[in-house]
Amino acid sequence: MKALQMIGFDADDTLWHSEGYFDAAHAEFEAVLGRYVDLSQAAVQDRLLATERVNIRLFGYGAKGMALSMVETAIAMTDARISAADIHRIVELAKSILSHPVELLPGVREAVSAVAGDRPVVLITKGDLFHQERKIEESGLGDLFHRIEIVTEKDERNYARLLREFGVEPARFAMVGNSIKSDVIPVLALGGYAVHVPYRLTSALERAEVDAAHPRFAAIAALAELPTALARFEHAPPP
Amino acid sequence: MKALQMIGFDADDTLWHSEGYFDAAHAEFEAVLGRYVDLSQAAVQDRLLATERVNIRLFGYGAKGMALSMVETAIAMTDARISAADIHRIVELAKSILSHPVELLPGVREAVSAVAGDRPVVLITKGDLFHQERKIEESGLGDLFHRIEIVTEKDERNYARLLREFGVEPARFAMVGNSIKSDVIPVLALGGYAVHVPYRLTSALERAEVDAAHPRFAAIAALAELPTALARFEHAPPP
Repeated sequence: MKALQMIGFDADDTLWHSEGYFDAAHAEFEAVLGRYVDLSQAAVQDRLLATERVNIRLFGYGAKGMALSMVETAIAMTDARISAADIHRIVELAKSILSHPVELLPGVREAVSAVAGDRPVVLITKGDLFHQERKIEESGLGDLFHRIEIVTEKDERNYARLLREFGVEPARFAMVGNSIKSDVIPVLALGGYAVHVPYRLTSALERAEVDAAHPRFAAIAALAELPTALARFEHAPPP
Repeated sequence: MKALQMIGFDADDTLWHSEGYFDAAHAEFEAVLGRYVDLSQAAVQDRLLATERVNIRLFGYGAKGMALSMVETAIAMTDARISAADIHRIVELAKSILSHPVELLPGVREAVSAVAGDRPVVLITKGDLFHQERKIEESGLGDLFHRIEIVTEKDERNYARLLREFGVEPARFAMVGNSIKSDVIPVLALGGYAVHVPYRLTSALERAEVDAAHPRFAAIAALAELPTALARFEHAPPP
């Protein structure tokens, strides 16, 4: 095969910790609701997830939409008995997510720098524009990326549009990220390469499966293994 | 002067109606609060605006941040006496803004098409990524634009970055929009041209003033006058 011309990186849970903050907010939400309703944590989460799936069409991803969906779910589940003070705690959950410090995952700077030395790297992330820009700035990694693209959904259509804008054929592009749904499946479908770096937590909205034997797919345990995985793609016979 | 190489358009209240929906949400918020506190509408708005100015650092612009700031303000102003049902009404205000139909302002399609026939036009807007993308799609204008850029803040730094990416000198660029603060002042400061098309309402967060005699500034009453205003820039002696 020809050399890969461009490497795309996901951001949340690939370069830095994120889902843990959402997870902590969910636990706090369950604790608040637990004072009003006699339901399991799983039942509370199911109800919240159902609200989020409906609202995502209007709210998109991110902490602000999460908080609004939580407020709505809390009011519905308590038959409007929840106190204003407890609703205020839910609004504060959004603020705590939006202001958490950016903590890079191990070996991230080294891995991105190594890959960026060989060809342009781009950051492709989804979610809240404002929050993502703040995290990119705070991460100190912004200058390593040739382009930074924040999209509403990481689907085939948006990847195809971005690759057209970058002037790169999908077959010369590899995407690296923690989400099978957002970083792997759409890129493989376009004819590109994908490297999965799992994170310890996966949002319920991101769960999906891929054929691990796919010839343009690799799974690695940490970003330190990325240069080797990319080299394997480049030296494998054409799939 | 040399010909303008690229024209930028703002979106909300320049191409389509927007502020009226936020205005209606504010009126509804005042009505809800009016049942709890004995304060003028202006006092309620002042309190909300103060909360928004603090929160914008975390929330950015858009309907979701507005609703969260409203919930927070309502709880604070009522000493947490506000009912969950009324808080739910506030969450619904965000949904109603996020799902309003896109109504183009008069003559927009013709004006953008006319300008796009002469040189590339780009859309530069701020606010909620998800909401802006939906409105652009629903407007049917997306294909007229060479590039669509949704930024967190329309300031000098972001305009400078975008113009670098576009490969256009500020002195060959004109921005068209309804906001003196976001569409006019930063572009003039960079050495570009700006055309102000006022909308009947201006958000309290967007109020600013410009020297109307500035040689690279024009004010028009409607987009139909845009081609004439641009031609005047191109035929004026260098400022």
